[in-house]
Amino acid sequence: MSPKITTELLRQLRQVMKSSKYVTEPIQAYIVPSGDAHQSEYIAPCDCRRAFISGFDGSAGTAIITEQKAAMWTDGRYFLQAAQQIDSNWTLMKMGLKDTPTQEDWLVSVLPEGSKVGVDPFIIPADQWKRMSKALKSAGHVLVPVKENLIDAIWMDRPQRPCKPLITLDLSYTGIGWKEKIAALRAKMVERKVLWLVVTALDEVSWLFNLRGSDVEYNPVFFAYAVIGTDTIRLFISGDRMADPSTREHLLLDSSLEAEFKIQVVPYESVLTELQAICVGLSPKEKVWLSDKASYALTEAIPKAHRYLTPCTPICIAKAVKNAAEIEGMRRAHVPKGSVTEISAADKAEEFRSQQNDFVDLSFATISSTGPNGAIIHYKPVPETNRALSGNEIYLLDSGAQYKDGTTDVTRTMHFGTPSAYEKECFTYVLKGHIAVSAAVFPNGTKGHLLDSFARSALWDCGLDYLHGTGHGVGCFLNVHEGPCGISYKTFADEPLEAGMIVSDEPGYYEDESFGIRIENVVLVIPAKTKYNFSNRGSLTFEPLTLVPIQTKMINVPLLTQKECDWVNDYHRKCREVIGAELKSQGRHEALQWLLRETEPITKMH
Amino acid sequence: MSPKITTELLRQLRQVMKSSKYVTEPIQAYIVPSGDAHQSEYIAPCDCRRAFISGFDGSAGTAIITEQKAAMWTDGRYFLQAAQQIDSNWTLMKMGLKDTPTQEDWLVSVLPEGSKVGVDPFIIPADQWKRMSKALKSAGHVLVPVKENLIDAIWMDRPQRPCKPLITLDLSYTGIGWKEKIAALRAKMVERKVLWLVVTALDEVSWLFNLRGSDVEYNPVFFAYAVIGTDTIRLFISGDRMADPSTREHLLLDSSLEAEFKIQVVPYESVLTELQAICVGLSPKEKVWLSDKASYALTEAIPKAHRYLTPCTPICIAKAVKNAAEIEGMRRAHVPKGSVTEISAADKAEEFRSQQNDFVDLSFATISSTGPNGAIIHYKPVPETNRALSGNEIYLLDSGAQYKDGTTDVTRTMHFGTPSAYEKECFTYVLKGHIAVSAAVFPNGTKGHLLDSFARSALWDCGLDYLHGTGHGVGCFLNVHEGPCGISYKTFADEPLEAGMIVSDEPGYYEDESFGIRIENVVLVIPAKTKYNFSNRGSLTFEPLTLVPIQTKMINVPLLTQKECDWVNDYHRKCREVIGAELKSQGRHEALQWLLRETEPITKMH
Repeated sequence: MSPKITTELLRQLRQVMKSSKYVTEPIQAYIVPSGDAHQSEYIAPCDCRRAFISGFDGSAGTAIITEQKAAMWTDGRYFLQAAQQIDSNWTLMKMGLKDTPTQEDWLVSVLPEGSKVGVDPFIIPADQWKRMSKALKSAGHVLVPVKENLIDAIWMDRPQRPCKPLITLDLSYTGIGWKEKIAALRAKMVERKVLWLVVTALDEVSWLFNLRGSDVEYNPVFFAYAVIGTDTIRLFISGDRMADPSTREHLLLDSSLEAEFKIQVVPYESVLTELQAICVGLSPKEKVWLSDKASYALTEAIPKAHRYLTPCTPICIAKAVKNAAEIEGMRRAHVPKGSVTEISAADKAEEFRSQQNDFVDLSFATISSTGPNGAIIHYKPVPETNRALSGNEIYLLDSGAQYKDGTTDVTRTMHFGTPSAYEKECFTYVLKGHIAVSAAVFPNGTKGHLLDSFARSALWDCGLDYLHGTGHGVGCFLNVHEGPCGISYKTFADEPLEAGMIVSDEPGYYEDESFGIRIENVVLVIPAKTKYNFSNRGSLTFEPLTLVPIQTKMINVPLLTQKECDWVNDYHRKCREVIGAELKSQGRHEALQWLLRETEPITKMH
Repeated sequence: MSPKITTELLRQLRQVMKSSKYVTEPIQAYIVPSGDAHQSEYIAPCDCRRAFISGFDGSAGTAIITEQKAAMWTDGRYFLQAAQQIDSNWTLMKMGLKDTPTQEDWLVSVLPEGSKVGVDPFIIPADQWKRMSKALKSAGHVLVPVKENLIDAIWMDRPQRPCKPLITLDLSYTGIGWKEKIAALRAKMVERKVLWLVVTALDEVSWLFNLRGSDVEYNPVFFAYAVIGTDTIRLFISGDRMADPSTREHLLLDSSLEAEFKIQVVPYESVLTELQAICVGLSPKEKVWLSDKASYALTEAIPKAHRYLTPCTPICIAKAVKNAAEIEGMRRAHVPKGSVTEISAADKAEEFRSQQNDFVDLSFATISSTGPNGAIIHYKPVPETNRALSGNEIYLLDSGAQYKDGTTDVTRTMHFGTPSAYEKECFTYVLKGHIAVSAAVFPNGTKGHLLDSFARSALWDCGLDYLHGTGHGVGCFLNVHEGPCGISYKTFADEPLEAGMIVSDEPGYYEDESFGIRIENVVLVIPAKTKYNFSNRGSLTFEPLTLVPIQTKMINVPLLTQKECDWVNDYHRKCREVIGAELKSQGRHEALQWLLRETEPITKMH
């Protein structure tokens, strides 16, 4: 991977930062956040502004460009990748390390007195705006909204915003119709005494209307906003997508139905002006509900007295707790793809996956890395770095897919020759962490961050660790990363775990320039039966939905406790039962033989 | 324990809430927080306003009185005690339970439109004021400062503010002289570009000047504020305490010394006016450093543009990391008291403790409870509830003392007859949790909340739990509860653990109306030697300073792992070595025999 040469681009950007065509007064710094106007984690090519200006294309990172300097903040998953992708114009800011300044502190340390710092108000979430603005203000600077995006101003071949056809999902997939979802939402609005709810997250719009799209690669969503009133529904969406008869029928656009379920289709671009118009008509105590992570532009459109901000919208929470149809779908989605570990390259995995029923797309870019590339946590193979798989190096495959019935995400780490004792030792610690989370029993209402250390304890004992969270929420034929629950040392926006939520369990260990190990299952939160029941609270645990063998050759069995051995054997028995039956019925005898070999029980010697 | 009858007091309070003698306009609600003007956890009798108005005298709780209602918020440690102490005028609000409203939400739900809510601005911390004020404002109410405390207005026999003699500590106890501490503090102030630092926490003032007092029971502190400038020191302290020659000598009040170390002694009551005077003289960018937990009154005295607020002051952090002399003192303080478990009543424990060198006071009211009283987490025996110890019930003793060289805090749970299988089972889970924390290895910079679940895992597996944190910071001849570190599921103001910090490790299990179990040691954070060293970060672990046998009769040994057995045996070996040697040298043969019996190794059957 060679870095992108950005000298000329930075020169152009610094020019528009001073140009009266774009800014009323020159700005001394410009912030380029990672997301789009919907604060999506994964974004369409037209929104990859930070990658355009810097070359760094990981899923998380913020660039700040001043008159003299350019700096890039990213987290532990991307330290190696970012270092390889940015050129010497840039300083890499490794978030989470002790000596790394925050964006605010860095700005204060480098800016001349009384500076103006610009940012696109549609791209920056309101909570980040607030924090940044406050910090700058107290140091004598000011954060200003710059309406026209300055990266777009210098991006000559910027792609069009995608506008792909929609997929309608019927009740067998969604379990609940969209009218019912809107009715439930309105009940929540009444409870909180709000008149309006603005839906800005793309997966929330998709979930609410039981629609899917493909505007963002791997994420089955489409560009849209929704504004729900007590008896109106506005859907902000572009192009002629509403011309499609099946979509019209699904949304009952041409049916005579109760007025409060009549959807008004409004152009995507008009969301700001429509929201402003709604706010003009509000009586003193009437409130508009919005996520505090929505864009500063939309948040500012609602006068402060009318704003009702929460970290999660009610849709976000409803979506996280899967209903029976969704859980059933997630189970189905995980079944017939048990054989991916048999093959040895990402495109082959995709080929296999795409032969399955209901396959739509991958759920993220497959991470297929061998040896030292494995230490780049979110590595994606490209021709320049492509390494041949060999019998001498660890191979890590992290892949997932979108099916109409669910979303998958699985990582396995394998060795096709003889792993070293050290590789086995590290793999075993990671496995112990994986099991510690997967088998954990914890009270109803526990937040995910309280489970994170279970995944690290075995690594910590030996002085090892990994610089990423342990798990993320997983959508149901929606984003493979979704809030509001997760398992991480970070405590930000962490909603309590409840039965029906689905998260990943993916501890790892990465040795720079040497290898990467990760073991990831998607797991369902289920009620646990316990001997006692303190305060009548009830307990929870996890059930793995992913059923793919864990390579026993990599395990240093004596390092496992008997309980951990039993867990591995129970898990492999379940793989045999469920996946084995499927392979048998598909007549895939070779695959079945492989499965049986890979799921042989392990035994602790005494 | 019979509840305090508060009908008449509440009537009087509601009267002054409307009296123009105290409030410019009638207030519809009055908040009575727990703390004093220094946000102390433990307070002097004159500051026990919440206990006076309600009868509930636990260390944490907030009372709110409206025209019709009275409600008391407290946490899981005090649910039973509060329920027993308050009468039917009060509603108990159990914090941490799902359906318990926050104080703000409750106020909004019960107040008539456009209400005024009053609070003493010297008692409420600025951060709580801010949160409360915001929530009330957005619901159309307003939080107002009421200068005269309304509880004091109706409290006829309110005690005087204590003004006890001071104790000076020399270098052998403190390790660092006060001039050196002030110099280090000024270096931090330069680093943060602040001109002034206001010290409001009593233990911070005590630590800074190497002085101790006894104004607050169990907490060796005295009522004072300090304001440190770049070349001035102001100590706000009442009475003639500065008349004592040894104090004058310690503070060099009569010596000719560098101007910047000359202490100006100012009356305690004048802190607000002096601070206001300082702020009048500030140039535009000059800042005053204050904890964000300082009182609203002092915070408001500093114009917003000049405020520099942080969750911890630099003194708080410096105080938490003990120096070599302090660690040595803490070790000494823990040694000769190994025999308390032998005796069976709290006053006897105090008698024994007070015979030790350097004994000053207890560090908190001894919790000595048997059977069902043990389920009241912060139970303190009083004549009405006093139960005889018997061979049929579990006995819990939580006691600690202040010595000139350190502070101790230890809990042991014992049975003098034959414990039931269930009692042993629960005790063993608690012990497993205690060991899991004590033996944990974790990276440098880990926050305490990430270790909390280790203490609960064994209980969780069986559906059990306890409703308090696992550990608190412990001061060195200072408050037995001190910030900013701790081990709790709460993530509030949790500074990363570093070598030299001292915390308690005290998981428990409490069965209402039946028994209480807690196993508590004071432990020192020390560097851990690990096989590997990821990112060169270094690892930490804990060393128990408390050396008191854990009753092996209570252990269901087969439930322990071999590692846990080894931990118990190693711990008991250390008790024998250190405490045994001391008992021998004191010629206490009976105690020595008891120690040897209690520390017999346990063995897992195979």
